[in-house]
Amino acid sequence: MTDLLSLIYKKRDGLVLSADEINGWISSLTSRTPPPDYQISALLAFIFQKGMNEKETATLTEAMRQSGKQFEYKNFPKGALFVDKHSTGGVGDKITLPLAPLVAACRESLYFPTISGRGLGHTGGTIDKLESIPGLKIDRSLEDSYKILKKHRVCFLGQTKDIVPADRILYALRDVTGTVESIPLITASILSKKLSENLDFLILDLKSGSGAFLPKLELTDKLAASLSSVARESEVPCNVFVTRMDTPLGHYSGHRLEVKESLAILKGEGPAASTELTKKFTERFLIFSGFASEDAVKTIDRKIQTGEAFEKFKDVIEAQGGSLVKFEKAVKENKMKTKVITAKEKGFLHFDVRKLGLALVELGGGRKSKTDIIDNDVGFYHPFETGDRVEEDQEVLKIYYRDKKKLDDCLQVLETAVQIKIESFPKSPLIRKVLV
Amino acid sequence: MTDLLSLIYKKRDGLVLSADEINGWISSLTSRTPPPDYQISALLAFIFQKGMNEKETATLTEAMRQSGKQFEYKNFPKGALFVDKHSTGGVGDKITLPLAPLVAACRESLYFPTISGRGLGHTGGTIDKLESIPGLKIDRSLEDSYKILKKHRVCFLGQTKDIVPADRILYALRDVTGTVESIPLITASILSKKLSENLDFLILDLKSGSGAFLPKLELTDKLAASLSSVARESEVPCNVFVTRMDTPLGHYSGHRLEVKESLAILKGEGPAASTELTKKFTERFLIFSGFASEDAVKTIDRKIQTGEAFEKFKDVIEAQGGSLVKFEKAVKENKMKTKVITAKEKGFLHFDVRKLGLALVELGGGRKSKTDIIDNDVGFYHPFETGDRVEEDQEVLKIYYRDKKKLDDCLQVLETAVQIKIESFPKSPLIRKVLV
Repeated sequence: MTDLLSLIYKKRDGLVLSADEINGWISSLTSRTPPPDYQISALLAFIFQKGMNEKETATLTEAMRQSGKQFEYKNFPKGALFVDKHSTGGVGDKITLPLAPLVAACRESLYFPTISGRGLGHTGGTIDKLESIPGLKIDRSLEDSYKILKKHRVCFLGQTKDIVPADRILYALRDVTGTVESIPLITASILSKKLSENLDFLILDLKSGSGAFLPKLELTDKLAASLSSVARESEVPCNVFVTRMDTPLGHYSGHRLEVKESLAILKGEGPAASTELTKKFTERFLIFSGFASEDAVKTIDRKIQTGEAFEKFKDVIEAQGGSLVKFEKAVKENKMKTKVITAKEKGFLHFDVRKLGLALVELGGGRKSKTDIIDNDVGFYHPFETGDRVEEDQEVLKIYYRDKKKLDDCLQVLETAVQIKIESFPKSPLIRKVLV
Repeated sequence: MTDLLSLIYKKRDGLVLSADEINGWISSLTSRTPPPDYQISALLAFIFQKGMNEKETATLTEAMRQSGKQFEYKNFPKGALFVDKHSTGGVGDKITLPLAPLVAACRESLYFPTISGRGLGHTGGTIDKLESIPGLKIDRSLEDSYKILKKHRVCFLGQTKDIVPADRILYALRDVTGTVESIPLITASILSKKLSENLDFLILDLKSGSGAFLPKLELTDKLAASLSSVARESEVPCNVFVTRMDTPLGHYSGHRLEVKESLAILKGEGPAASTELTKKFTERFLIFSGFASEDAVKTIDRKIQTGEAFEKFKDVIEAQGGSLVKFEKAVKENKMKTKVITAKEKGFLHFDVRKLGLALVELGGGRKSKTDIIDNDVGFYHPFETGDRVEEDQEVLKIYYRDKKKLDDCLQVLETAVQIKIESFPKSPLIRKVLV
């Protein structure tokens, strides 16, 4: 057993942990004699309070990465570049779905192996959204995933036990000890997972606003800086975006509704914001791969117009066992009832996005406990954004529901989630900041 | 299970815990479904960092007291006053031994039920010292202890599982999570135990200096203020003394040597400092019981001169199964070898008392692990105090040892524990502060 007590004292007293100390701690977590939970949680609490400097955070990130399996791309074409995007999540954030195939459609050398998670709290999960496509299978061996990736240059993967097990251990403790919202711990958690994908380039999308994992803008900015500097320390080219989550992203929330919106984006028929973000990220990937900015934009539009982007998504979905035909059929058969929320007076729309996400969970479109089964068909249509001017009686939210009881629970949460403000207020920009 | 997470969040974010929250937490500790250790330790870590206000600390103290059995003095004489003294411990602090019988000898109405602990780290324990008297038994039922107390007005008790179990649970966790040195947590730990003795008056002796549990003077002063105010909040009259532990107390350290010094104090033949402190505390107890200060001092001296104080101690020891005759015999039979340390040059003596205590542990006069058996006969004679002027070659420490190997280990620690400073420096007063 590694005795964590000396590390606890040091961190408690505001001292800096050495690389040996951090490495010893993290490697002990997955050893046969891990330290007791109560010492880990005390150490996490003191790290929460006292922070970690850039070097400590980078060491922690690397130690956590080393705790698990690393991706190895054997026998891939020469010049293959492996890229991914990670978002801290929110409501309506389906960007990974259209992004990966669009990037792959635009550039032959780009490979997009993307590990995603499941829904958590008020936020949806990319894996859950993908699994609303009938037949689609995420849980497969890494070898199978490499095969799909090699052929289609995109593969959607779920988190496995092999990848950064130290993060899983620490996160489970942080979740129940009030130590989640720590900049160095979040940095190490996010980056260790992404770095174990052995990437050539990474985009991180930090959400800010009421629906973000970290609602405080100040913390988001700190996290952006921390992620950027630790990625640099780890010598992985990385762009950190700070984007708005004070309004749901795009026009739809809910699993199948978001897949539909993703398909629309790939066909050039998507809502403005989710389309813009998908394209902006794609542009960055293309520029990284050697495109001039102007060429990148043109290529993106062309690949959408020609249908190649959509075809790429279809191919990947099918390679992973899914069927878009069956998806369309399932959507038709599960016709949802709808309930429309209108503006009670004219004014300016304001979403509490976290509550909106929780209202979606009430509807059945998210899990309250791990074993809950998601209702893929429920969801919201939200044509306006926070800050938009709306008239009296104008439709601001359409609810797709199955169960009257659940609708009632949802409506109760929505009462404070969707409001009309009399005074106008500035709309947040979609992209607030990019750290290159 | 009480969910501690909301308490963790509050304390983490610098908020004040409500009485209900504190009571719920503490009562859950001894419930059938206690909260998980990792949440308790996270909460302790955030309390360590953010502190607790006076009201929170008083509530915590009372909740902890309520977690266990309270002393109930049934069928004691009308007007009986129950008193005790608690010291935070150090090296050579044997004051409880002569104090309890002296107080009882001086005043018929005073009853001295005193719960003491065992040695911990570099500090000795009153119970261990008493157990160096052959036959003496501390572990007895509370009913038996009441009988001894009723008859002799003194009873030495050990800590039992019934008294403040919440403190035992919390202390065990604090000890291994770096959360010991917290003013509110120490306050609640000390006072909850003492308050469960159902006292009419209490003296707390906080040690300050290199051998103290809290070496930082600033922390000691804060702790004194916290103890004093929380005792007031709990409506228990209490005097808080801050006394020096930058030099060992009295002339002897080591279990039997300290019992011998205690006997000497009761015979009026003790060293100046340990005698003075014993008398000062006794005076406070007597004044509390109605004596004028002058009368108290006279009575103390008379009860020592007449031998009544010594007889009282002998009676209590015998009532608890001990024999002073056998004690003297054991001391004679276990003749220790001695090694004298002299001043290398003239100057001013300086003890690092913590190290001196650790050197005593090396000698066998303390435990390194819980199962170690104490060698009662080893110890130190230290005729001078920190700050005293000593001449070259003057004896500053005599070591009573049994085992050459242990002596060597002891001497190694002593090298930095006993030093001669060329420059003079001010001696600390024996009593630095009294909060009444």
